[in-house]
Amino acid sequence: MPQESGGDPRLAALAVLAQQTRDLLDAVVLTDVPEQELTAVTAELVALTERLEAARRTAPLPPGIGPDSRYRQLGNAVVGACNPHALPLVVERRAEGGVRAELAFRPAHEGPPGFVHGGVSAMILDHLLGEAVAWAGKAAMTGTLSLKYRRPLPFGEPLVASAAVSRSEGRKTWADGVIAAPDGTVLVQATGLFITPVQWAAALEEGAAG
Amino acid sequence: MPQESGGDPRLAALAVLAQQTRDLLDAVVLTDVPEQELTAVTAELVALTERLEAARRTAPLPPGIGPDSRYRQLGNAVVGACNPHALPLVVERRAEGGVRAELAFRPAHEGPPGFVHGGVSAMILDHLLGEAVAWAGKAAMTGTLSLKYRRPLPFGEPLVASAAVSRSEGRKTWADGVIAAPDGTVLVQATGLFITPVQWAAALEEGAAG
Repeated sequence: MPQESGGDPRLAALAVLAQQTRDLLDAVVLTDVPEQELTAVTAELVALTERLEAARRTAPLPPGIGPDSRYRQLGNAVVGACNPHALPLVVERRAEGGVRAELAFRPAHEGPPGFVHGGVSAMILDHLLGEAVAWAGKAAMTGTLSLKYRRPLPFGEPLVASAAVSRSEGRKTWADGVIAAPDGTVLVQATGLFITPVQWAAALEEGAAG
Repeated sequence: MPQESGGDPRLAALAVLAQQTRDLLDAVVLTDVPEQELTAVTAELVALTERLEAARRTAPLPPGIGPDSRYRQLGNAVVGACNPHALPLVVERRAEGGVRAELAFRPAHEGPPGFVHGGVSAMILDHLLGEAVAWAGKAAMTGTLSLKYRRPLPFGEPLVASAAVSRSEGRKTWADGVIAAPDGTVLVQATGLFITPVQWAAALEEGAAG
C-alpha cells in the first residue's frame, strides 16, 4: 500500500488507479497498434471514464495531514500520488535541512527529440524549491523563479533533484535547487523567491501564539 | 478530424485516444466512487494498457512537417495532440510576429488549493517562448528562463498566453511572454534566453546555403 495513503484502503486503491493511468498514458505515447485497435480502446476508455464520473468531487483531494501524521498532497499536479498528471515526485525531507528527490523522466515528458521538455524540468524545480521552503517552516507561493539549463536532460535514466533555502526575510524566502546526474553533474539549476501571502502569515502567527 | 493529424486517419484516431486519456486522467483526479469500483476500473485499464503495448515505438512521435505542410509536434509533452500529458497547448503563429494560445487549466493542474501549480504555468511559458523563437526562424533550446508570478492562476477559466522575440544576436535569441486573463490582467510573466546548438546552427547555414 503506498505510504502516502496513510493506511486508508480507498486512497491506496486510488493511488494504484492513478499509477495505472500513468502507465496507460505512457502506452498511448508509444503505441504503434493499428487505427482500428486505437478506436476500440478509446471506446472502452469512454465507458471507464463514465464509471469514474458516477460520483465526482468538485476539486482534487486537498493537501493535509494524513493519519500517519505526514503532510501529503495527494491531488497535486507534480507530487500527487492520486493525480496521474504528477510524475509523481517523491520528496525526502532531510534532517540536515533541504529536500531531495530521486526521479526518472518518461517518454511522455519529451520536448526536443530524445530529451526532456525544458518546461517539465522547470515544473519539477518550481515544486522542489517550494518543498524546501515548506520544510524550512514557511507557507509560501512562488514569487519569482529563474532557471539555467546547462545540459539537456535524458529520460529513462535515474536523476537526482535537490533544493534548500538560502535566505529568509519577513514574508520572503529564497531557495536554490538543481536537477543533476547521479555523478553530480548539474543539468538544470534554479533559484526562486517565495512569498508568504499576508493572510497565511497572519494565520501562522495566530497558530504560533495559540 | 483534429487539424494536427494532417489527414492521416490513424493519427487522427491516436489524437482522439490521447484526448480520451486526458478525460480519464481528469476523472481520476475528481472521482469519488467507492474502493471496489476503483479497483475494478484499474483492472480494466491494465488490460487496455496491454492492448496498446502490443505494438510499441521506442520513442514518442517525432516533430516534423505534416502532409498539410504545417510543422507539428504530435508527441510533445506540452503541445502534442497525441500525448495525453500535453494540455495540449494550441499555438497560433501571428502574421505580425509572435505567438498566441488560448488555454484553460484543469483540476489536474492544481498546486495550491483552488489554483494552478506554478510549475505548470512555468512549463507552458517555457514552451510558448520557444515557439516564438521558432516562429522567428530560430531552432533553439532554452538557455535561461525567468518567471514572475503576479497573481494566482485559476483553473477552468479561459486564459490567453502570448510570447514574442525581443532580440537576437548570433546563436542567442531572447523572448518575452505572459499568461493573462481575457481582460489583459497579467498573471505570470516570463523572459527567456534561447540558444541554437552549434550543430543545428551549422545545419541551418548549410540549408540556407543549399
